[in-house]
Amino acid sequence: MTLGPLPETDLTRHRRLREQGSLDRADLEAILDAGFVCHLGVVVDGRPLVVPTVYGRDERQLYVHGSVASRSLAGGIPVCVTVTHIDGLVLARSVFEHGVNYRSAMIHGEARKVTDPEEKLEGLRLLTEHAAPGQWSYARQPSRKELAATTLLALSLEEASVKIRTGAPDDGDGPDAELGLWAGTLPLTSAWGAPEPDPALPSEILIPGHIARREGTRHG
Amino acid sequence: MTLGPLPETDLTRHRRLREQGSLDRADLEAILDAGFVCHLGVVVDGRPLVVPTVYGRDERQLYVHGSVASRSLAGGIPVCVTVTHIDGLVLARSVFEHGVNYRSAMIHGEARKVTDPEEKLEGLRLLTEHAAPGQWSYARQPSRKELAATTLLALSLEEASVKIRTGAPDDGDGPDAELGLWAGTLPLTSAWGAPEPDPALPSEILIPGHIARREGTRHG
Ligand SMILES: Cc1cc2nc3c(=O)[nH]c(=O)nc-3n(C[C@H](O)[C@H](O)[C@H](O)COP(=O)(O)OP(=O)(O)OC[C@H]3O[C@@H](n4cnc5c(N)ncnc54)[C@H](O)[C@@H]3O)c2cc1C
Ligand SMILES: Cc1cc2nc3c(=O)[nH]c(=O)nc-3n(C[C@H](O)[C@H](O)[C@H](O)COP(=O)(O)OP(=O)(O)OC[C@H]3O[C@@H](n4cnc5c(N)ncnc54)[C@H](O)[C@@H]3O)c2cc1C
Repeated sequence: MTLGPLPETDLTRHRRLREQGSLDRADLEAILDAGFVCHLGVVVDGRPLVVPTVYGRDERQLYVHGSVASRSLAGGIPVCVTVTHIDGLVLARSVFEHGVNYRSAMIHGEARKVTDPEEKLEGLRLLTEHAAPGQWSYARQPSRKELAATTLLALSLEEASVKIRTGAPDDGDGPDAELGLWAGTLPLTSAWGAPEPDPALPSEILIPGHIARREGTRHG
Repeated sequence: MTLGPLPETDLTRHRRLREQGSLDRADLEAILDAGFVCHLGVVVDGRPLVVPTVYGRDERQLYVHGSVASRSLAGGIPVCVTVTHIDGLVLARSVFEHGVNYRSAMIHGEARKVTDPEEKLEGLRLLTEHAAPGQWSYARQPSRKELAATTLLALSLEEASVKIRTGAPDDGDGPDAELGLWAGTLPLTSAWGAPEPDPALPSEILIPGHIARREGTRHG
């Protein structure tokens, strides 16, 4: 069963810049698939902690992982996960109308610590394949000891929101247009470079296609 | 007076991957200067909220701004601001040793709502110039009405931490090196593209040098 459109709840309802909101789940999925690092927010001793971390996902859940010792991976506590792509600067005629073109997603929920061994392995596979497609079957998979040292958290994708801004500045038809100033956008893009072999790598080990193929492709 | 080295407090002390920590304030400043979007974490009704937002800084403080209506810009409450640059994927011989090359900074504190008109204007100038150098003096500056509709928060850069990972995977001299697998890094870079004029822009308005000049330069 797949999840429906993004819900408007007390947590996800946009209060500001509502016109940039989207309730289309496909937008959420596209934003999550375009990146692999999220910012995970938790409350520790009453204070916010915002931790950058790698994620993966399936249809219903987002997965993050880390050391069993991490305070940010406690599980069973409220979390907010945000994924942000910056597409460019919006350079308007007035400073006030300056802004950013972006796609961002926010997921609210209680993360669940994954204990079932099969789900844990599958979650780690999704996470690895999300960041580094092809590596799960190429590299050595986790040993029992490594699995035990790893915490995997699952977060339902149910309660999520999306915000997107695209296009030109908004003051092209206002009084500021008379100022005769240049206005437009300055696009920002992110791309994968040429793979750099580990200096310790014997020269006869060739780079596999699934890694070489990413060079020059876009990220974000 | 400038601030000293990054302090080791209960909030900033790295508990995990300590070798990636830095107490050099110059590292913090370089990370802040390389980007212009942070993730601002606050606690609202006991739950974390992680909001992407633009920032600027001076020697002692970080500035963020937004609508006076924003819940995330309340001021006087604990915040955690994180700035993250992703430099590449670390592709190891084992899935467990996979990771990310990165530079990240985390700032803890209580953000202060800026009320002094002069400081507010200066903070907005720093923020605008940080994201879009040259635009503060080129574009129309904020009117009184616009200033009144804007909240500016200042956050001391005192209690901050830095984490940096660079270089090859760590399993080049362990037993996994025997596996005969390729290992290395896949670099990720972000760069400014060609400016796109607002379709509403009269064709005789030429692009100013301070904007044109950014094309092809690196971000992050
Ligand atoms: C792009 C990226 C991807 C990452 N992916 C993962 C991942 O998939 N799994 C994983 O476990 N870790 C990952 N990390 C590291 C992660 O951000 C945390 O540093 C790590 O999880 C330790 O978290 P903790 O809750 O145990 O922090 P603790 O060590 O308990 O945090 C204590 C204090 O250390 C400082 N600190 C912690 N982390 C950072 C940081 N990143 N930058 C600056 N200061 C910091 C803060 O002041 C914090 O209050 C990634 C980091 C980056 C930048
Ligand atoms: C790259 C970037 C830069 C930005 N720069 C600024 C800035 O400088 N100043 C500024 O005021 N705003 C900025 N924004 C927008 C900012 O992220 C918030 O959307 C906005 O500040 C409203 O915040 P709020 O606390 O009033 O949210 P509210 O509207 O009260 O939030 C209610 C709910 O709406 C949803 N929501 C809010 N923001 C987002 C989001 N970004 N993505 C997905 N869901 C969201 C969440 O579910 C949240 O719980 C930026 C966004 C991006 C992606």
